[in-house]
Amino acid sequence: MVLDVRLKKLQHEIESQGFDAVLISDVANISYLTDYSGFSIEEREAFLLITPSNQVIFTDARYSEAVRNLIFSFELIEISSKNKFPDLLSKLVRKLRIKRLGIEENDLKIAEYKQIKKAVKKLKDFKFHSHRAIKTPEEIKLIENACKIGDEAFKNILTKIKAGISEIQLAYLLENFIRKRGFEPSFKTITAFGANCAIPHHQTGDTKIKKGNFVLLDFGVRFKNYCSDMTRTLVFGKASDKQKRMHKTVLDAQSKAVEFVKTPTPGVGVLGVGVLAKDVDKKARKWIIKKGYPSIPHSLGHGIGVEVHEHPYLSVNSKDILKDGMVFSIEPGIYLSNFGGVRIEDLFVIEKKGIRQLTTSPRELIEIK
Amino acid sequence: MVLDVRLKKLQHEIESQGFDAVLISDVANISYLTDYSGFSIEEREAFLLITPSNQVIFTDARYSEAVRNLIFSFELIEISSKNKFPDLLSKLVRKLRIKRLGIEENDLKIAEYKQIKKAVKKLKDFKFHSHRAIKTPEEIKLIENACKIGDEAFKNILTKIKAGISEIQLAYLLENFIRKRGFEPSFKTITAFGANCAIPHHQTGDTKIKKGNFVLLDFGVRFKNYCSDMTRTLVFGKASDKQKRMHKTVLDAQSKAVEFVKTPTPGVGVLGVGVLAKDVDKKARKWIIKKGYPSIPHSLGHGIGVEVHEHPYLSVNSKDILKDGMVFSIEPGIYLSNFGGVRIEDLFVIEKKGIRQLTTSPRELIEIK
Repeated sequence: MVLDVRLKKLQHEIESQGFDAVLISDVANISYLTDYSGFSIEEREAFLLITPSNQVIFTDARYSEAVRNLIFSFELIEISSKNKFPDLLSKLVRKLRIKRLGIEENDLKIAEYKQIKKAVKKLKDFKFHSHRAIKTPEEIKLIENACKIGDEAFKNILTKIKAGISEIQLAYLLENFIRKRGFEPSFKTITAFGANCAIPHHQTGDTKIKKGNFVLLDFGVRFKNYCSDMTRTLVFGKASDKQKRMHKTVLDAQSKAVEFVKTPTPGVGVLGVGVLAKDVDKKARKWIIKKGYPSIPHSLGHGIGVEVHEHPYLSVNSKDILKDGMVFSIEPGIYLSNFGGVRIEDLFVIEKKGIRQLTTSPRELIEIK
Repeated sequence: MVLDVRLKKLQHEIESQGFDAVLISDVANISYLTDYSGFSIEEREAFLLITPSNQVIFTDARYSEAVRNLIFSFELIEISSKNKFPDLLSKLVRKLRIKRLGIEENDLKIAEYKQIKKAVKKLKDFKFHSHRAIKTPEEIKLIENACKIGDEAFKNILTKIKAGISEIQLAYLLENFIRKRGFEPSFKTITAFGANCAIPHHQTGDTKIKKGNFVLLDFGVRFKNYCSDMTRTLVFGKASDKQKRMHKTVLDAQSKAVEFVKTPTPGVGVLGVGVLAKDVDKKARKWIIKKGYPSIPHSLGHGIGVEVHEHPYLSVNSKDILKDGMVFSIEPGIYLSNFGGVRIEDLFVIEKKGIRQLTTSPRELIEIK
């Protein structure tokens, strides 16, 4: 039912943009349109061809049985060593008289493009992301569930941070809590101790915890194909004044950004709707700089859904505008080389009643004693 | 040291193919050349630009600290919202007077290509894969270690297959064995029971085990960035004659393929070297068809290394030729819709002494009683 709505919306868009069909190659878009998440992102294993009235899935025999059992609304065309994709596409394009084909230029590779170009002359970029940026109440509920499991995992992991534990061990325990319940991490957990926290995307390693270390945990849960994402930074032992000030500044920066979305802006910005995403970024970024710290070396936040990173982007150059149904992170950070770093990340949704926080773990500085 | 050898080999290749430089975008190639595996495959986070005498890495501030600490031999150029990649590339290309730039057409996206095209006029496909297909003894050792952990995991999981267990639970236990030892699965474990085994890449689900079911386990381990991959199919309870015959046919097909590589072919094929990969595929495929079963709905095998699937490919249309130092899977299978399937997969290496099996778990049909 939900799938039908998504497909219809897309088919309407295809028609109104003057395409005869679009070729969907992005794995996240395929899972969004079919509810099947079995295709790998490492290799090309499927394509969707969608016209205003037809929908076809191309895949090979490793997946055709699954597609027949699980993806009802799509006609299956099987790729094989004898029937290669470009030939099959060419045949279908002639049959359906497709002249103008939309392709995903952000996803399709040059080698693939050259093949497809032989089948269809008129290829033009088709941007799918706006379809996914606005979430339905059902999708928001799924993300909320993922956040809830993440909050539970965080609560649990606080009891596991003990002298001598390594980053890898702590990441294992955190992910194991999630997996034991039958879910999966939505991305590889980032665990950083001490100076490693100064690397925003530190590669979890063998470093062991020491008294006075910052402990940064950035992790998420995938619940029925929808993702959560959160970050907390705490101190193992008693926090120094320098650590406390860093943490407070990040926390305040996050609060300022949220307040900014909440505050009605004359002309635009009724309960967050209409606010420019880049202005939210600016708000938090300015606060951190004002307090004498280096600017955030990444964007303030990102949309989330079937992918961990998707539109809207809350960044300096973003063109996105906040709308009802958007779910995104707000995650300011301060990183001081050879010392450490603090990042606090929560997920938020824009709804009719305004902005609402989906992750609910305490945001105040926790000292593990 | 090993890294230097890889880089030098590539730089020699760049020169001999008449390129001024190559732009490496494929994440697996980046990790192969830098030994840093922290970049995600979901999003573009880094590029390498390599000339016969210079090597540069482009990444953003989320990774620059890690790059400075871990990737010594590359000059770092930092991407930011103000200094976008195409502009930075353009500047460097002018500085180094690069006219002919190699790009990875199998990896680069159209949208990226359009940006890069503005910086450099002469772009030509550069195929990197031949560099990775031949493994050094050190690389073989790492894959062998990954296989060993996989064999241990398989031995352990045999004790866990009990009445009522679900596919997801079994996959959890198998992966947990690997993670607990500080390693990672090299891909998402495929666990299939009964008729689900008829889907070569079944999506592990809630199906519970029943007496008489086929149990298919396809999994691997990542050890210091090198992957293993193996598949075993067993029976929960007593195997029927139909099941036994399927299993024996697959086992024989695998043995025939291995024997074929071992047998010196007049003119070519001294101890496997020089054998056409597609001929190995043909050998196993023909055997299965001869025994009255449908042809294998996938290729017979694939190379493996920093990626689970890489050259050489043992498939109908492959142009690869087996060479000393190549590591690959041989994995025939029979899949009968609504009944079940059998796949047996092992890894092999071609060495001076001939072909050697790296995975060592028993291949005979196991009945879990």
